[in-house]
Amino acid sequence: MRSYVTKHEERVRQSFSKQAFMSTLGAELTTVEQGGVEIRLPFSPSLTQQNGYLHAGAITSVLDSACGYAALTMAADDKEVLTVELKVNLLAPAAGEVFAARAQVKKAGRTLTVCTADAFAISGGQEKVVATMLATIMAVPIMPAK
Amino acid sequence: MRSYVTKHEERVRQSFSKQAFMSTLGAELTTVEQGGVEIRLPFSPSLTQQNGYLHAGAITSVLDSACGYAALTMAADDKEVLTVELKVNLLAPAAGEVFAARAQVKKAGRTLTVCTADAFAISGGQEKVVATMLATIMAVPIMPAK
Amino acid sequence: MRSYVTKHEERVRQSFSKQAFMSTLGAELTTVEQGGVEIRLPFSPSLTQQNGYLHAGAITSVLDSACGYAALTMAADDKEVLTVELKVNLLAPAAGEVFAARAQVKKAGRTLTVCTADAFAISGGQEKVVATMLATIMAVPIMPAK
Amino acid sequence: MRSYVTKHEERVRQSFSKQAFMSTLGAELTTVEQGGVEIRLPFSPSLTQQNGYLHAGAITSVLDSACGYAALTMAADDKEVLTVELKVNLLAPAAGEVFAARAQVKKAGRTLTVCTADAFAISGGQEKVVATMLATIMAVPIMPAK
Repeated sequence: MRSYVTKHEERVRQSFSKQAFMSTLGAELTTVEQGGVEIRLPFSPSLTQQNGYLHAGAITSVLDSACGYAALTMAADDKEVLTVELKVNLLAPAAGEVFAARAQVKKAGRTLTVCTADAFAISGGQEKVVATMLATIMAVPIMPAK
Repeated sequence: MRSYVTKHEERVRQSFSKQAFMSTLGAELTTVEQGGVEIRLPFSPSLTQQNGYLHAGAITSVLDSACGYAALTMAADDKEVLTVELKVNLLAPAAGEVFAARAQVKKAGRTLTVCTADAFAISGGQEKVVATMLATIMAVPIMPAK
Repeated sequence: MRSYVTKHEERVRQSFSKQAFMSTLGAELTTVEQGGVEIRLPFSPSLTQQNGYLHAGAITSVLDSACGYAALTMAADDKEVLTVELKVNLLAPAAGEVFAARAQVKKAGRTLTVCTADAFAISGGQEKVVATMLATIMAVPIMPAK
Repeated sequence: MRSYVTKHEERVRQSFSKQAFMSTLGAELTTVEQGGVEIRLPFSPSLTQQNGYLHAGAITSVLDSACGYAALTMAADDKEVLTVELKVNLLAPAAGEVFAARAQVKKAGRTLTVCTADAFAISGGQEKVVATMLATIMAVPIMPAK
């Protein structure tokens, strides 16, 4: 017998593994719980902006995927999820060895789910929040791959 | 004698060339005018989400850089720019051969500049809007590279 | 025979007339077109913040209603609209004799419609943009009044 | 001798008392702590939208003031605060006897402070979250009243 969480975790992990962009970034799906997901992104010089910090777009990308997958853990079995919109505040320069994007479902609905997420820069075991997101995710019938 | 626009264009192009992440994405800075910037991003299977469309994070990343550089064209010479926050609505699946992110300054201020941007998917010469952004950019004294 | 626009305008005007809050603010629905709405709000000392300018919340409220009604002009006959989320940038102190909130549909969908809106302060016949909004509106089956 | 919190609370209460719009809405400043503020808004038929629920603009207005004042509790003595931008997600119909808007500082900076806030509908002693905000507040030199 499979537990609810395990089934949802499998669904999230299968979808994540198909997001080529996450692989391109070097992102790893580290935690999947009901209503919450963590994605980790190691620093890489290939992801930087003009001052050598992680580009806001790279941070935003993992926060977006984390929000989407947090919503997916609470979606019906015959649904997948799409980002309707997201807003992110960049709180500090994204300097660190690795970045953790942690998303939580704030309000789950049948069609729309609202998620919040924070991104932390981790250096020498210390965490510092560098960005925060508020996003709207939509559940849609599973569509055939493009 | 160098024109105002040319000097600003040079500044934007120099900064863009230092954004390793734009190069990783395959993005190209196509147009720089006073108060407006276009960045183009060819479709690549390495930038996709689970259904084979461009990942929202990739679209958001080029929109973010476009907004930042639109603001930079109107910033004082001794300033550079950072994204304070951005909001993006994904309007349609990002399917196309190439994507154009076009940003305009909505209101330029000494410290904060507000920009809007649209992303268009281009296929067979036809354009379709796929995302729209509203972002706040901050001018800060030029900082030494990390 | 009634034209399409007229039918939609009537629907918008009926709903607006039931928004007691618009009446409390002193707001007036001035223009309704397919995909666009203008609401005007005269300055009043009862709507101010601590420095005597119009409170951001008052400006945001009329921008929100304008976005919702712009979306309603393109909704199916058996639907009404609710605001899913909105983002507003305050661009300048809201000083003026009257304020015009003008909303346009950016992308109309069956369930979700994205609107943009600008608020202008009008003084001595001159207009100045003071705020801009990007909002997501949802069409839902008409619900019975509370 | 006056404590730090008390001095800040006084500053917030003085400013709130000058926001005529809060008085027009019937809002009350209930709690001021360092980095956090609660404003309460009793339901009133004068604040409703077309279905008899509280208008999103009324909820947004008290969330906005709560965010601004949360930021003010951490601002330098010679500064006041202005809302740069805000984003709000409406999570449920705003039905209740009274609404509590609770804001917290997420990241305090010298110029920009980022706040989050939730609005709760309270009925029969039960609380239900109805909206959530993410806002950017700017500290500016105290300006003369208009």
